[in-house]
Amino acid sequence: MEKREQLYEGKAKKVFATDDPRFVIVSYKDDATALDGLKKGTIAGKGAVNNRMSNYLMQLLEKNGVRTHYVKELSDRETVVRKLKIVPLEVIIRNISAGHFAQRYGVEEGIVFPEPTIEFSYKNDDLHDPLLNAYHAFALGLATKEEMNWIKETSFKVNEVMKKYFASLGVTLVDFKLEYGKDEDGVLYLADEISPDTCRFWDAKTGEKLDKDRFRRDMGGVEAAYEEMMRRVFG
Amino acid sequence: MEKREQLYEGKAKKVFATDDPRFVIVSYKDDATALDGLKKGTIAGKGAVNNRMSNYLMQLLEKNGVRTHYVKELSDRETVVRKLKIVPLEVIIRNISAGHFAQRYGVEEGIVFPEPTIEFSYKNDDLHDPLLNAYHAFALGLATKEEMNWIKETSFKVNEVMKKYFASLGVTLVDFKLEYGKDEDGVLYLADEISPDTCRFWDAKTGEKLDKDRFRRDMGGVEAAYEEMMRRVFG
Repeated sequence: MEKREQLYEGKAKKVFATDDPRFVIVSYKDDATALDGLKKGTIAGKGAVNNRMSNYLMQLLEKNGVRTHYVKELSDRETVVRKLKIVPLEVIIRNISAGHFAQRYGVEEGIVFPEPTIEFSYKNDDLHDPLLNAYHAFALGLATKEEMNWIKETSFKVNEVMKKYFASLGVTLVDFKLEYGKDEDGVLYLADEISPDTCRFWDAKTGEKLDKDRFRRDMGGVEAAYEEMMRRVFG
Repeated sequence: MEKREQLYEGKAKKVFATDDPRFVIVSYKDDATALDGLKKGTIAGKGAVNNRMSNYLMQLLEKNGVRTHYVKELSDRETVVRKLKIVPLEVIIRNISAGHFAQRYGVEEGIVFPEPTIEFSYKNDDLHDPLLNAYHAFALGLATKEEMNWIKETSFKVNEVMKKYFASLGVTLVDFKLEYGKDEDGVLYLADEISPDTCRFWDAKTGEKLDKDRFRRDMGGVEAAYEEMMRRVFG
């Protein structure tokens, strides 16, 4: 497959066209942003960690019956994925209170929920990604009710598969963000990435944070945390 | 029934004990607040309008099978209601985009939705009543899943009854807020009030606002709008 012109550059990734209109090439960067774009920086090696980890997890999910955009890893930083129109929703699954949840509802971090929660936010930088629910998404014409139901069911399934997998690595899956997209025929796929940028990972024994919170909160040891997650996944 | 000590004073109402522990007396004030408490004022006659209109609507809803806290109107401003423990959620049903919805999602006011939306916010002044969903409410221990389902179903039913009723008065029901409470046996009832303080009413022909938005937005004609709604309901 031949790499063609750059289609898009986001905060953490670039996307390139290919000679096949069904596919694009994603190229992972080391750039990091946080706090609604106010905090900017670089995490050396992050692009390679996120690319390889995300590809590994997408394949694990495929094996468990989840339709994903993953096609083929080209290199440490580049991967072929399906070309999709992204549904403008961030889907967040939470097993334990942390981050925005704890702030928003005035509770401490670390409360284990009796069941996972799901929430949606509207991907819109100008509006600061406001929370919204399936009724709002339908009212705004962002997704049909059937699409929202598929997204909900799939996200909970992703959680079950990932929670079990990360537990086997001694890692607690606290929460994570997913995005979905549709191909030309309107078929939905899990898209974007699954990595320490988009998940909260806590060491199951020590509670140590092994994710982007170390960057968001200026905790130091950012690169080491990404490397540790890489080591747990790939040995 | 004998009125006893004041139990609570809120922004728009006072609540008094009675000699029967199952019931309290609500006394409606003319005081008004808006914009998360930043705006304060008085709307002359509002207490009587809201008390009488709310009682009328609660009785209409009872006739349509909705369990409400309404017991007996004592005077223009005072009503006996069941003593309930309020579920700390504001339930908002929207038929048309307006107010926070329009601001939050960056759309104009007046978009008629294909179906009504429902949303919940956590009643907590310090946290500024953040949006939350049924999963969050369950995770935070605010309500069970069965309670959230009952609240959802009941709120949509309230919307159907009220939409039809107000349409017959030449008034478009744009959106409204409901609250619920539980008695000592854990039985849920519709609580609080239904009035121009808690609903958006637009004249069906002219679109003129006949609700608290006239106060929130310094539009003038506030008292006249409340009186007009009173005239439509009671003739």
